[in-house]
Amino acid sequence: MTAPLAVSMGDPAGVGPEILAKAWEARTKRALPPFVAIGDARAVARVWAGPIAIVDGLAAGAARFDDALPVLQVEDAGEIVSGVPDVEGARCALHALELAAGLVRSGAARALVTGPVSKAQLYAIGFDYPGQTEFVAERCGIAGENAVMLLAGPSLRVVPITTHVPLASVSGLLSVELILAKARATARGLTRNFGIDAPRLAFAGLNPHAGEGGAIGREEIDILEPAIAQLQAEGVDATGPFAADTMFHPRARARYDVALCCYHDQALVPIKTLDFDDGVNMTLGLPIVRTAPDHGTAFGIAGRDIAHPGAMIAAIAMAGEAADRRALADA
Amino acid sequence: MTAPLAVSMGDPAGVGPEILAKAWEARTKRALPPFVAIGDARAVARVWAGPIAIVDGLAAGAARFDDALPVLQVEDAGEIVSGVPDVEGARCALHALELAAGLVRSGAARALVTGPVSKAQLYAIGFDYPGQTEFVAERCGIAGENAVMLLAGPSLRVVPITTHVPLASVSGLLSVELILAKARATARGLTRNFGIDAPRLAFAGLNPHAGEGGAIGREEIDILEPAIAQLQAEGVDATGPFAADTMFHPRARARYDVALCCYHDQALVPIKTLDFDDGVNMTLGLPIVRTAPDHGTAFGIAGRDIAHPGAMIAAIAMAGEAADRRALADA
Repeated sequence: MTAPLAVSMGDPAGVGPEILAKAWEARTKRALPPFVAIGDARAVARVWAGPIAIVDGLAAGAARFDDALPVLQVEDAGEIVSGVPDVEGARCALHALELAAGLVRSGAARALVTGPVSKAQLYAIGFDYPGQTEFVAERCGIAGENAVMLLAGPSLRVVPITTHVPLASVSGLLSVELILAKARATARGLTRNFGIDAPRLAFAGLNPHAGEGGAIGREEIDILEPAIAQLQAEGVDATGPFAADTMFHPRARARYDVALCCYHDQALVPIKTLDFDDGVNMTLGLPIVRTAPDHGTAFGIAGRDIAHPGAMIAAIAMAGEAADRRALADA
Repeated sequence: MTAPLAVSMGDPAGVGPEILAKAWEARTKRALPPFVAIGDARAVARVWAGPIAIVDGLAAGAARFDDALPVLQVEDAGEIVSGVPDVEGARCALHALELAAGLVRSGAARALVTGPVSKAQLYAIGFDYPGQTEFVAERCGIAGENAVMLLAGPSLRVVPITTHVPLASVSGLLSVELILAKARATARGLTRNFGIDAPRLAFAGLNPHAGEGGAIGREEIDILEPAIAQLQAEGVDATGPFAADTMFHPRARARYDVALCCYHDQALVPIKTLDFDDGVNMTLGLPIVRTAPDHGTAFGIAGRDIAHPGAMIAAIAMAGEAADRRALADA
């Protein structure tokens, strides 16, 4: 039997438990690969009336997947109130993440899917990574800055070259070296995880109209163009820099497999505009497959049975497909 | 008879002449108000086989609108080659713009629609405005920086608070005063031009996740929040600052009438992603109604009968509706 996916539940007070349960409900219709939830089973049971099987290992979980949501129980998360996170919940979420990542690294699970966590609560218990991505990267022996955040939806794939930094610092952080590192990992990741042999990378300029030949900023000329030329010399299908505002309409999107953007909102605005309910965050540059729904804990709507499970379903499906491709390529 | 709209043709080597002709073809189907084209009639005749009526004034043009595209001839643009702009064409485009703006200011035309021009060619003949918007503003006695650029499409309206400046300078340009000036003109413009009595203004934060409470930049706390509080105190329905990436999906868009964005691409990326073929650029803060198709000269496809006239049609329709509303309000 193929190993299942490991899905960490995320913060027990957020929407993680309910979207995970709804993803299980969609397992047949969406042809999802078997997965095992990792967290406190009580967090699911209090927001969902479906069948839960508490299991003591992944193989046991996979065996139960057809008729119940298998949960590998970590510690008790204490009192859980939807929408009201606390440090006990954060501890539970962190242990679930750590266990899930370990199971994937060991090969007991085929791929890692992470539910949404509360960074504020995690920081309160001493977590000192920018986010789950960097934590997982380090557990895989990869420096956090070498992991690449790919956002992928039905309409578009984007990579932000810089991520959670103030906008005013973006220009100073951009460098040829950074762009090359992100682009190489992106190209390799698209081949390994999506089966795209010669991925087409399109770069967005930093400035309006991609700088208009230097009239509105020089980063395109000084940083982006040399990086793109270097990538082309290495045989990568890299183009740009293009004016960001004309890169994301349907005809433009048909011209590339991934858009590499200079900063967070340049990448996240178009994909969340187009694919808000089913965007997936995939980490490239890791030895394992890792995806996550591209949304947060949504404490404001947690526990009310209205959270949209689309992104979690897409994250599970994409992780399973990527794991299949890697297994095939490595076989 | 109601006065017609004045539509400047834009650069004769660009797509302006052909999209104007196609807009005239759509006049009945799209219920467009009568308009008169201003430019060199030869620029239209060489790319379009329909009926053209060269007229000597706006009233004469309006009288011919049903059976021919009326053109108020300015100087000869010299030799015209589609896709190859030159200074003679730029001179013709500038004179058409100037004449059209003057006719609207005088009341002979009800509203101004401007076709796309080549800034590079205009600069070569001594034009020293950042763009047509600032030129028109000054001709109306308004300082260019007090004009507000509104982009409007079927899905969304956005205002960039800063426009054609390097991204690295945006943070330094943002101020409470600038935001207040743009927001007040926006609110007033939505009421006057779109008939929205109490417009809902939603502000995007500058930084990722709107700064996460100061963790990723302080402009939200130091600049945006005080400006929004001041607007609220003035009775404006202003909200935010919101994380830009979650402002533009359909459910989020239903919550406001206009999104005010900190910089060019934050505003232009979502609207061009959603409404690429029919986005309109409307200038607020002027004594006249002025719109333009939200695209450039498209020299690469000019003269090949493939340019999409949607944005020009939308610009003419929107200008006509706004002029009607203003006339009604002022009656």
